[in-house]
Amino acid sequence: MAQHIADRRDQDFVLHEMLNLADLSKHERFEDFNKKTIDMVITEARNLAIKEILPTQAEGDEVGCILKDGQVHVPEGFHKPYRLFCEGEWVAMCDDPEYGGQGMPKALAMAAGEMFTGANCSFMMYPGLTHGAGKLVEEFGTDAQKKTYLANLYTGKWGGTMCLTEPEAGSDVGALSTTAVRNDDGTFSITGNKIFISGGDQDLTENIVHPVLARIEGAPAGTKGISLFLVPKYKINEDGTPGEPNNVECTGIEKKMGIHGNTTASLSFGAKGTCIGELLGEENKGMKAMFVMMNEARLGTGMQGFGFATASYINAVNYAKERVQGTDLLKMFDKNPQSVSIIKHPDVRRQLISMKAYVEGMRTLLYYTGLLFDKVNLAEDEKEKARYKGLIELLTPILKAYCTDRSFEVCAQGIQVYGGYGYIREYPQEQLLRDCKITSIYEGTNGIQAMDLLGRKLGMNKGKPFMDLLGEMNKTMAAAKEIETLVPMAEKFETAVNRLGEVAMHMGMTAMSEQVLNAFAAAHPFLDVTGDVVMAWFHLWRAVVAAPKIEKAKKKDVAYYQGQVSTADYFITCQLPTTLGKMNGLTTNYTPVMEMPEAAFIG
Amino acid sequence: MAQHIADRRDQDFVLHEMLNLADLSKHERFEDFNKKTIDMVITEARNLAIKEILPTQAEGDEVGCILKDGQVHVPEGFHKPYRLFCEGEWVAMCDDPEYGGQGMPKALAMAAGEMFTGANCSFMMYPGLTHGAGKLVEEFGTDAQKKTYLANLYTGKWGGTMCLTEPEAGSDVGALSTTAVRNDDGTFSITGNKIFISGGDQDLTENIVHPVLARIEGAPAGTKGISLFLVPKYKINEDGTPGEPNNVECTGIEKKMGIHGNTTASLSFGAKGTCIGELLGEENKGMKAMFVMMNEARLGTGMQGFGFATASYINAVNYAKERVQGTDLLKMFDKNPQSVSIIKHPDVRRQLISMKAYVEGMRTLLYYTGLLFDKVNLAEDEKEKARYKGLIELLTPILKAYCTDRSFEVCAQGIQVYGGYGYIREYPQEQLLRDCKITSIYEGTNGIQAMDLLGRKLGMNKGKPFMDLLGEMNKTMAAAKEIETLVPMAEKFETAVNRLGEVAMHMGMTAMSEQVLNAFAAAHPFLDVTGDVVMAWFHLWRAVVAAPKIEKAKKKDVAYYQGQVSTADYFITCQLPTTLGKMNGLTTNYTPVMEMPEAAFIG
Repeated sequence: MAQHIADRRDQDFVLHEMLNLADLSKHERFEDFNKKTIDMVITEARNLAIKEILPTQAEGDEVGCILKDGQVHVPEGFHKPYRLFCEGEWVAMCDDPEYGGQGMPKALAMAAGEMFTGANCSFMMYPGLTHGAGKLVEEFGTDAQKKTYLANLYTGKWGGTMCLTEPEAGSDVGALSTTAVRNDDGTFSITGNKIFISGGDQDLTENIVHPVLARIEGAPAGTKGISLFLVPKYKINEDGTPGEPNNVECTGIEKKMGIHGNTTASLSFGAKGTCIGELLGEENKGMKAMFVMMNEARLGTGMQGFGFATASYINAVNYAKERVQGTDLLKMFDKNPQSVSIIKHPDVRRQLISMKAYVEGMRTLLYYTGLLFDKVNLAEDEKEKARYKGLIELLTPILKAYCTDRSFEVCAQGIQVYGGYGYIREYPQEQLLRDCKITSIYEGTNGIQAMDLLGRKLGMNKGKPFMDLLGEMNKTMAAAKEIETLVPMAEKFETAVNRLGEVAMHMGMTAMSEQVLNAFAAAHPFLDVTGDVVMAWFHLWRAVVAAPKIEKAKKKDVAYYQGQVSTADYFITCQLPTTLGKMNGLTTNYTPVMEMPEAAFIG
Repeated sequence: MAQHIADRRDQDFVLHEMLNLADLSKHERFEDFNKKTIDMVITEARNLAIKEILPTQAEGDEVGCILKDGQVHVPEGFHKPYRLFCEGEWVAMCDDPEYGGQGMPKALAMAAGEMFTGANCSFMMYPGLTHGAGKLVEEFGTDAQKKTYLANLYTGKWGGTMCLTEPEAGSDVGALSTTAVRNDDGTFSITGNKIFISGGDQDLTENIVHPVLARIEGAPAGTKGISLFLVPKYKINEDGTPGEPNNVECTGIEKKMGIHGNTTASLSFGAKGTCIGELLGEENKGMKAMFVMMNEARLGTGMQGFGFATASYINAVNYAKERVQGTDLLKMFDKNPQSVSIIKHPDVRRQLISMKAYVEGMRTLLYYTGLLFDKVNLAEDEKEKARYKGLIELLTPILKAYCTDRSFEVCAQGIQVYGGYGYIREYPQEQLLRDCKITSIYEGTNGIQAMDLLGRKLGMNKGKPFMDLLGEMNKTMAAAKEIETLVPMAEKFETAVNRLGEVAMHMGMTAMSEQVLNAFAAAHPFLDVTGDVVMAWFHLWRAVVAAPKIEKAKKKDVAYYQGQVSTADYFITCQLPTTLGKMNGLTTNYTPVMEMPEAAFIG
């Protein structure tokens, strides 16, 4: 099978040669996941993704979702792959087999997820959100709630959503106005309107479970008075089957720039009759519970961005190798110069190596973060567990924002490589860009992620997670210094890591000073440079693994390993100086941003 | 009238306070264009743009062009503004009044163009290309050709296009296969297919004139054998009116990511009967002639990109001032903090000042380049004329590529400021981004612009134009050093200019060495940093003009002038360090790009 969606060779490199994932099978929890099983899982995911899901991507975009008589119909072609996806038990890859999960390592689920989301993100959002809703039930539900909902969600029999946003409360969730009134039987009557609900209605599943944030009558204002409720589309009969409608009405769906295959619904709860919800978790602790889902969703959103980027990159490479146009620059003054494939042109090649560097760096970040989750699960003491958890918390905003920002840029380059063909709908590139744009916005805009990094994660636990991250980088640097050819790269990387430490210290201090606003004005570029150094780290790590193998590698692997070293060299030598320059800008405190009078924005 | 599309105050600042455009009226050629007339022209353009053209933007996107029975129908709403546009004599703003032009300075036409293209670029492409075709006739046509075509084009009575691209010859025009066979009467029979022809068919005008590149039977291969022909859609009767169809068939129109309101046509010439063309200019000199049109089109494309950016920026500022959400960061721990407009949030404000800096910098670049054209026309000796021409040639690839690249980023930020609303079609922001994407591709991809800068323009005339540009920058720097508050900015700018000189020298030398491929692999980032320093120059210039006025300004102008200084400070202090870092990357020669084995792109 030709390379589609993702570069399988590079997936294998990260899982087996960088992260040694099969080592996890030494532990009882993952004993089934030896190398052979890991490879089989990815191959199966790849087959399903390429053969069944990818062909629905254009249809999803072209046809979109249709709201008719209060019921949303997803694109017809989605039904078959959804059935196969559920049959393959892909909804809850890492979760408890008792409830329909596969119990696989999260790093492996990341690799499978790359295939699925790269094939058709709009499609994947249905099971993705379903899983997230299930996770909430698993974490906060009573035994009865688990019994009613969990297997139905984890098997994809029912759908799930995430109902936070209201017209007047977007990023500011605490301002919501949906209310819950307690009934005598312990249930609640829910009244309110939610907007921008992904998968908010669909005809893939026989029921939909909406986790809804609402305020119980008399609860405090702001986030402290918010509770979480499970609100099914159809009330649930005694025997657990879906029954009467629960007055959850889909009042409209958005016309969007992209992700047309996924419904973005406005939902009205209890407008035309009583809408019943069950409290999930404790009263007034809804935000805390929802953060569990949001954190998962943030990683998922980073994955989505990446999925677009990896697909766009693979398409661009394939196109650049096939498309013959223009002559070799060195031969352009020959009498009858032959035309060459455009991958020979330096500017096209620069774009491709830049895309490659970001895609492979982000792949490592995603799989590595997945592995941290697995290590949390396997950790033998609390200290170790806390260490891995700290790294996850620190990396989450970077993974969400950096991956989605860079992926958008990769998708734009993916259009550029195609030239005029990139702009027309006959080719996949323009859809990937349109679809990708949402990822920097939803699940907490990237600006909010940057505030999270600077305001919470950087100083968390006296900065220990950040120091741990730098410590991991230093280990790779030390290893690189042992390999003669990598010493120059290692030294450049060292400069960047040290400078990042200084800049982080500066940013942290500024954020705690009276210049707090200036610090937050620079939060997003600070996230960018942190992400850049993380990318550089992974590339150096890749080079450390690949360089010693070049000489003895099988013929087909030689170019691959050389490419790892060249890509690291490109990122560290050509790109990282820009990052260092940006760091110099950060220590100027971005004072003009807040200093400028508001009235000056339009003269 | 509220601020739409563009910031009128800033337009006035550039025209009157930076460029002193009214000074041109001292010369006979522009004697009609005193300050009052200049202001009136912009006000008229603004009224037409906001009242008549802007309302058609969404319709253009939603309805698009329809091909039915071989005839393209543009969106219905385009007809009225097109008529008004022609009646207002806006097609040929700078051209000879004898042929229907207005004879205005090009700098002024840029300001009007900003309004028009920002209101609806797809619409503006029809008269824009029509003007370009007219320019070709004016420059290369015989008297008879001028009589037949020129006034019809410059008044917009007939439409015009630009037929270069063929399916197998995109950026590589020399590979085209359209042929021209000489007839006994001196005309030629044209046979071939062209694709991606903007405005290639439409129902706005009674005839369409296609300038077509083709190879005369027996002419040399490559660009040296290409001639230019005028091929009307309808043959022209003796009395100058359109007659019989000329066998120019529209065989299809593209479905595109954006600019739906403009036809992107596939045209077939002479497939179903003889298609007659007239030679325009000399045989085999078609490419040279076409470059006249392409250079105009490149400036026009830079303007288009900028038009999207300026509209997106204004929308974003208006939205950020109106949209209330979240609390002031300094008051977030208050008991009942009030919600504030999102422009108060540091990250939103950073995005807005970044958009402002690029938009205002690009506006200066466009109007300044326009003024250079006017100065060519007014130059008193050949040396002076050559100097202005050199600057234009140097700035053209920067204007095209830098403006379209940065504008795409500005439009992406313009979505981000809107949050989720930026992604839905109800608001204008997502269309602006989709429309904008084409500008980095057509009229020579931005990669080709970068090659033009490095391979031709940098070393042109022994580097004199580049040295002239640095000389202009140094003048502004000297002026800034006379103003105490601007000295720190001037010094930072000085560092950047000096470093740009070094980097340009390095790039030029590398491009002439055996490392030529490495140089061209870095051509695009080199264009980026050159553009950045140009932006910094204009911002310093703005500050030089604005700073001394703050104290004595009328109340409503104080914030505006302060804003000029703050924006310059932002760009030079916060952004320029990134550029300096990127320059450090450039001097590493980007060697890994070409070094990496091609097979390594996919493992």
